[in-house]
Amino acid sequence: MKVRDAGMTIGKLPTGAKNCITDVGSVMVGHVTLDYSLDKEGKEYACTGVTAILPHGGNLFKEKVTAASYVINGFGKTTGLVQLNELGVLESPIMLTNTFGVPAVTQGTLEYMLAESPEIGETTGTINIVVGECNDSYLNSIRLFPVKPEHAIEAIKIASCDQVAEGAVGAGKGMICFGYKGGIGLSSRIVEDYTVGCLVLSNFGKKEELQRLRYSADDGLSETSDGSIIIVLATDAPLSDRQLQRVAKRCGIGLGRTGSHFSHGSGDIVIAFSTAQKVAHFSEEMVETRTQLREDHLIMNQLFTAASEAAEEAILNSLSQAATTKGRLGRIVNHLNFYKEE
Amino acid sequence: MKVRDAGMTIGKLPTGAKNCITDVGSVMVGHVTLDYSLDKEGKEYACTGVTAILPHGGNLFKEKVTAASYVINGFGKTTGLVQLNELGVLESPIMLTNTFGVPAVTQGTLEYMLAESPEIGETTGTINIVVGECNDSYLNSIRLFPVKPEHAIEAIKIASCDQVAEGAVGAGKGMICFGYKGGIGLSSRIVEDYTVGCLVLSNFGKKEELQRLRYSADDGLSETSDGSIIIVLATDAPLSDRQLQRVAKRCGIGLGRTGSHFSHGSGDIVIAFSTAQKVAHFSEEMVETRTQLREDHLIMNQLFTAASEAAEEAILNSLSQAATTKGRLGRIVNHLNFYKEE
Amino acid sequence: MKVRDAGMTIGKLPTGAKNCITDVGSVMVGHVTLDYSLDKEGKEYACTGVTAILPHGGNLFKEKVTAASYVINGFGKTTGLVQLNELGVLESPIMLTNTFGVPAVTQGTLEYMLAESPEIGETTGTINIVVGECNDSYLNSIRLFPVKPEHAIEAIKIASCDQVAEGAVGAGKGMICFGYKGGIGLSSRIVEDYTVGCLVLSNFGKKEELQRLRYSADDGLSETSDGSIIIVLATDAPLSDRQLQRVAKRCGIGLGRTGSHFSHGSGDIVIAFSTAQKVAHFSEEMVETRTQLREDHLIMNQLFTAASEAAEEAILNSLSQAATTKGRLGRIVNHLNFYKEE
Amino acid sequence: MKVRDAGMTIGKLPTGAKNCITDVGSVMVGHVTLDYSLDKEGKEYACTGVTAILPHGGNLFKEKVTAASYVINGFGKTTGLVQLNELGVLESPIMLTNTFGVPAVTQGTLEYMLAESPEIGETTGTINIVVGECNDSYLNSIRLFPVKPEHAIEAIKIASCDQVAEGAVGAGKGMICFGYKGGIGLSSRIVEDYTVGCLVLSNFGKKEELQRLRYSADDGLSETSDGSIIIVLATDAPLSDRQLQRVAKRCGIGLGRTGSHFSHGSGDIVIAFSTAQKVAHFSEEMVETRTQLREDHLIMNQLFTAASEAAEEAILNSLSQAATTKGRLGRIVNHLNFYKEE
Repeated sequence: MKVRDAGMTIGKLPTGAKNCITDVGSVMVGHVTLDYSLDKEGKEYACTGVTAILPHGGNLFKEKVTAASYVINGFGKTTGLVQLNELGVLESPIMLTNTFGVPAVTQGTLEYMLAESPEIGETTGTINIVVGECNDSYLNSIRLFPVKPEHAIEAIKIASCDQVAEGAVGAGKGMICFGYKGGIGLSSRIVEDYTVGCLVLSNFGKKEELQRLRYSADDGLSETSDGSIIIVLATDAPLSDRQLQRVAKRCGIGLGRTGSHFSHGSGDIVIAFSTAQKVAHFSEEMVETRTQLREDHLIMNQLFTAASEAAEEAILNSLSQAATTKGRLGRIVNHLNFYKEE
Repeated sequence: MKVRDAGMTIGKLPTGAKNCITDVGSVMVGHVTLDYSLDKEGKEYACTGVTAILPHGGNLFKEKVTAASYVINGFGKTTGLVQLNELGVLESPIMLTNTFGVPAVTQGTLEYMLAESPEIGETTGTINIVVGECNDSYLNSIRLFPVKPEHAIEAIKIASCDQVAEGAVGAGKGMICFGYKGGIGLSSRIVEDYTVGCLVLSNFGKKEELQRLRYSADDGLSETSDGSIIIVLATDAPLSDRQLQRVAKRCGIGLGRTGSHFSHGSGDIVIAFSTAQKVAHFSEEMVETRTQLREDHLIMNQLFTAASEAAEEAILNSLSQAATTKGRLGRIVNHLNFYKEE
Repeated sequence: MKVRDAGMTIGKLPTGAKNCITDVGSVMVGHVTLDYSLDKEGKEYACTGVTAILPHGGNLFKEKVTAASYVINGFGKTTGLVQLNELGVLESPIMLTNTFGVPAVTQGTLEYMLAESPEIGETTGTINIVVGECNDSYLNSIRLFPVKPEHAIEAIKIASCDQVAEGAVGAGKGMICFGYKGGIGLSSRIVEDYTVGCLVLSNFGKKEELQRLRYSADDGLSETSDGSIIIVLATDAPLSDRQLQRVAKRCGIGLGRTGSHFSHGSGDIVIAFSTAQKVAHFSEEMVETRTQLREDHLIMNQLFTAASEAAEEAILNSLSQAATTKGRLGRIVNHLNFYKEE
Repeated sequence: MKVRDAGMTIGKLPTGAKNCITDVGSVMVGHVTLDYSLDKEGKEYACTGVTAILPHGGNLFKEKVTAASYVINGFGKTTGLVQLNELGVLESPIMLTNTFGVPAVTQGTLEYMLAESPEIGETTGTINIVVGECNDSYLNSIRLFPVKPEHAIEAIKIASCDQVAEGAVGAGKGMICFGYKGGIGLSSRIVEDYTVGCLVLSNFGKKEELQRLRYSADDGLSETSDGSIIIVLATDAPLSDRQLQRVAKRCGIGLGRTGSHFSHGSGDIVIAFSTAQKVAHFSEEMVETRTQLREDHLIMNQLFTAASEAAEEAILNSLSQAATTKGRLGRIVNHLNFYKEE
């Protein structure tokens, strides 16, 4: 159940129809979840997965989208940000997985994109793949590399605009948040005619730090390491890369309100994109026209609020939607039975 | 009254003896408050001031301190950050005033430092002055430049380690926060043997955004512009410039928890310094030794928490301590009568 | 004489008609030069000035231009970059002066802009003033503050699109470059239908570091401190703020080719703007349209080359055009009699 | 032959004994070169490789080194910089390969490091792998992924402190620079008691842009795409991460002097580290002591000069040392027969 369905409202802005990142028009999400023993005794266990976020269903290399990133805390291995920051565009799906799955997922995504565009590496240079990660090694046998390139390809192929599963699915399968089961969380906000959608991969926080939710049972893990969170923000509002980065930065507010202090060992990273206009890879034109919001207009502050609210609600949904999960060494991480903070 | 004295506790860490930035050993603060009519009818009014924060009482040019800055949102005119960022040291007091008072305060501070160090501009290069600002033009006749260089000099000269006045004093005289009277707020936290102290100049937020405090009356301003906040963080923990910037960044968490979304028109800037070791301007040595905390030690996360808590509590104190203030055009901004959010 | 008139060609791109920053359509430059004794014996001397660069002749606050900055080395006191970086616009003239003249020049420019726009600080927030500086204390009595606010106002008022004086004029009056007289240098380049113009305030380098020019006499200063350079780059090409920053960064190539290694004590700062489209301060619109170059088009690399060539040539012109100058304590800095490096 | 052996001297500082990055005490380099046909006709060809740079021969995860990066131009896919920038340390070898080899090399390096440290991903979090790349698709069948994880492992295992091969070896096998054969280039400089060493992977520049070298024949490629360069800078001088970044930035000067304008499509990235002190992964200590250079000491400027000179000379050596190479589709890239620019 989403926290909103449990009677908890985060902020003031209305949500989109699905309260999900796919409320933003063309955005698609696909999960591949790995959940099986890697040995006979179940000591080693694949409790992990891959999640793909596609800004649109077309060829992302040929029709890029404006994008920006913001590093809240950089103890993380996200790849692809150097070029994204230099050029302000995203030209691949955003892929999420476990920390040691990054090479396999990069490889798989690369193979998918190369198959789709035979000219890459041949007549038109290379392609920049963006992969975010969190460390799920408490439940998942991360050293055994259960994630393979084909899992990334599958996650892209099955991505859809439909209602997306939350909690212990895809890259979220093995993640832990505030000592309880976390993972994938979703939300959205409506601002004027525009939608802001959010998907988080939550894997941070100690039990005693959780601020927004109250819970009665004491079945959470008492000792967790620093963890991380990847926040993906999508919008159909026409924003420049600089404007997108400003909006992305506000996701940190929502993160802070859940109780995080952006801990030392955390890779807390925001990747934001706008689907409002596509940037063609091939073009004979020298000049192009872009529309963008006037930043002094009231709407900019509303988008900031939307980013903050959406990030916070997505994190809480990643908790409320995550089922109790069993992983390696027989370890179990419980679902959080919360009630609303009065 | 500080919010803590009203029964409201922010976070979990203990405060220092004075719950003030001057709990950090050598730190000194001085306020000069301007409060008088600039014409016969009181239409134009000086409702502003200057606040000086000195890392220590010695010659700051000759004994610099390690420092860092972090721009939460850059719609502001703070000066001195280019060099502070390049070199990681602070070599002047941190001065706060109104937006158009920055040139006068820079000039006064420069004159003070030149008088103290006859070699500057003569045999040993120049000096970098750091001045932060917020826009107090609702109450203060900012276009008439009531702040003069001598006010900056006086603020430095009267600075002391004692209990420091809060609210509508010094640079905080004309500031507005969440539609109520804001200004200077103070707090501190103890982490192991170290102290983290905070001073804010609060001038941001709309009435309906305030999250942490509840209030019954409806006497706040209903229309306020975006505003700003300057956050000064001091510590005696031995931190490198990079580590200080990491700690500074966490002040944004506290800001976000009060209800801010880092609005577009806001200059939200953090300046942090450590008094743990002095960096000599004159030295024959080629190599120097520095101590710094190990970032993987538990204490780093505690310092992050301290920065977040201290910033939040200082902002709330800037509200709870600020008296109702009358300024230009007969305008009045009320003190916030709050009660604690349950 | 410009180096080009002495038979020396920098790079391959053609220059504009005047080989000057004012080849970019609307750009205007004004110099105020101070050159007089401050005491009877001439021990203390005003050997300094102010230079104003106006992107266009209209009200810059109401019609802002897209802008970016790039800090090559940040040992400098340039003010106004925090907001310029956050918003990507310039809303005041770019002012240049000596290091301790920054407060006076900021004050004068502020007064000028306030007089032009009665709504600033009244109904529409504040204004961001950009002032760059170098340290001319070898020739100029910098501690005595000869630059006053009125000098800034005058420099703005007399600015014109005509041929602009180079060398020991305006802010360049007291500057030293590679041990010889430096100061203001100008250049321009044509790329397709666009113009790139450059103005530098040169004040860096030791005699033995000069690479591009050869000279026979040995009349340069043998001991100079680290110094600085401010580089202002103007273009009428439609570039976004991110694109402008990329172009600005290439000015460092030209600086490096003259022999600089971006020395420790140097404030080497680039400020770039595009006059291609004006950003209205007042507007009811929520969305605006911008044109910008496609970065994968050949022209982007040509603009990079133009920035590199223009910066290098402007620096060399600041040397070749600067007359031998006498300043405080009877000190003399000689004009460089150069010949072309074969 | 190194350019210096051809009578060409870059700059003024003396070189180390080998004029190689391994002049810095503990630094080790290993190359694995792939050079074989991937089909019967030789249409598809493996003309690529992997180069490993090890700051020292111990366990890099347990004994990290201080490090920094600087992105000259970010059109590149280098991975690992987010964490390196946040923490200022390097905890893996620096690996170089072709653009699409990054996932395989990351995977191989990860496997190597996991084998060396069984606690990673088990009891002590994860590890950050740094891999730089250039696009060798003119000569190498990059779409066929000839580089495998085991090539990375082998490059690490065979790394040594000896004289290192230059030119068309390791990751440099398929690279092109200024239309001629480029690849791996090496150099070093001595500053006081310290050594600065440089290794570049050169793959940038059009024939007509080359500035420092003159050549008579016209056998270079006339059409090349934008290309990239990775610059690795090592030193035994005790520098903080901030200081290392300042030094790293000066490598761009050397790059610019060879003729580059940091072209749009180029991933021009510097990674710098200091071997002066090791940062222990496991430690009970809360406080640690570091030594660093005083930045106002003459030596800092000398290190800046060293970085500039070393980068420039390493690039020229990557040309002078690279043999004519044949790759896919029967394509040949010639060795540059240069003579010194007078």
